[in-house]
Amino acid sequence: MIPFNVLLFDDFETLDAFGPVEFIGKMPNTYQLGYFSLEGDAVLSSQKVSINTLPFSCMDVNGVLLIPGGMGTRKLAEDHSFIERITLLSKQALYVLTVCTGSALLAKTGLLHGVKATSNKLAFDWVRGNGNNVDWVKKARWVHDGKYYTSSGVSAGMDMIVGFICDVHGEKTARDICNSVEYIWNNDRTNDPFAKI
Amino acid sequence: MIPFNVLLFDDFETLDAFGPVEFIGKMPNTYQLGYFSLEGDAVLSSQKVSINTLPFSCMDVNGVLLIPGGMGTRKLAEDHSFIERITLLSKQALYVLTVCTGSALLAKTGLLHGVKATSNKLAFDWVRGNGNNVDWVKKARWVHDGKYYTSSGVSAGMDMIVGFICDVHGEKTARDICNSVEYIWNNDRTNDPFAKI
Repeated sequence: MIPFNVLLFDDFETLDAFGPVEFIGKMPNTYQLGYFSLEGDAVLSSQKVSINTLPFSCMDVNGVLLIPGGMGTRKLAEDHSFIERITLLSKQALYVLTVCTGSALLAKTGLLHGVKATSNKLAFDWVRGNGNNVDWVKKARWVHDGKYYTSSGVSAGMDMIVGFICDVHGEKTARDICNSVEYIWNNDRTNDPFAKI
Repeated sequence: MIPFNVLLFDDFETLDAFGPVEFIGKMPNTYQLGYFSLEGDAVLSSQKVSINTLPFSCMDVNGVLLIPGGMGTRKLAEDHSFIERITLLSKQALYVLTVCTGSALLAKTGLLHGVKATSNKLAFDWVRGNGNNVDWVKKARWVHDGKYYTSSGVSAGMDMIVGFICDVHGEKTARDICNSVEYIWNNDRTNDPFAKI
């Protein structure tokens, strides 16, 4: 079983996390889902969902790390101690996946130096300011570079996770999961209708 | 403020609830989101998300009720006392929205007698068996009939909630929300690519 670790914090965007989680949950014999926050408290999303979590210290780091975005990233991007923790978690992870402004947190770690990445289109300038050495891609539904997958805003995280499953486990698995959750996959990562807004 | 009450239970399908929640959360001056279960305990989704809830008794029922689906509906559809409770909640609600097999629970209340409705395509026969008097629509991304909105499986709940927002608050509001969460809306409720699978 591969740990699939979802990193949560107050004011995270609900669908950024639980979109990808839905798809990964369809591979229960491959991935073990877990939900983590710095201290392991209950975390409140921007949509007022209260989720119980385990502390970072309980995470089996040899797995996939998912970092959602949301308004909570604004404060955390300036929190050096928090960024140090996720730097370590990201270094140890097999893959790091970010959704929306989650890429700003990952950019702050410095690990995206010279790496292609994308983010939410409405917050793009703010995100870019958190990583001047990142090779930001403005028009992309999601971007894959090495062990990093980064997606555009909120809903794009679902297209990205299907892309991840497709890359790692093959297209049949990806398509079967889409059928089971009746998801119309935008399978072209360059098809980003929101880049021009 | 209109209460938007999300009904949760063990083994609900994560995205059935938190897909629609994401979109409704973009109208914070119109809707007040709340998460409820029978006794108000922490509820565990099929994807192992633990959510803190309030009891049904704390719900302001004069609002919108969202009933997700998931494996947990199999047991609850046979739980007469639970069905009695959601019958009362559904009667009092301004609108009742179901996603996936959530429509089986609503069908069990008898309130869908002669009403057009749809559900998950892979579980359609089981759902239909919970409401022989319902006018089931096999090919539909979502169905609107009176105060009831019912959607197909999992991801279809997001197309439905945008349709609901469009009907109640106008297309501009619906499109603006889609842009803010970068959601590619399937706005044709008859476009159901999973009906034939």
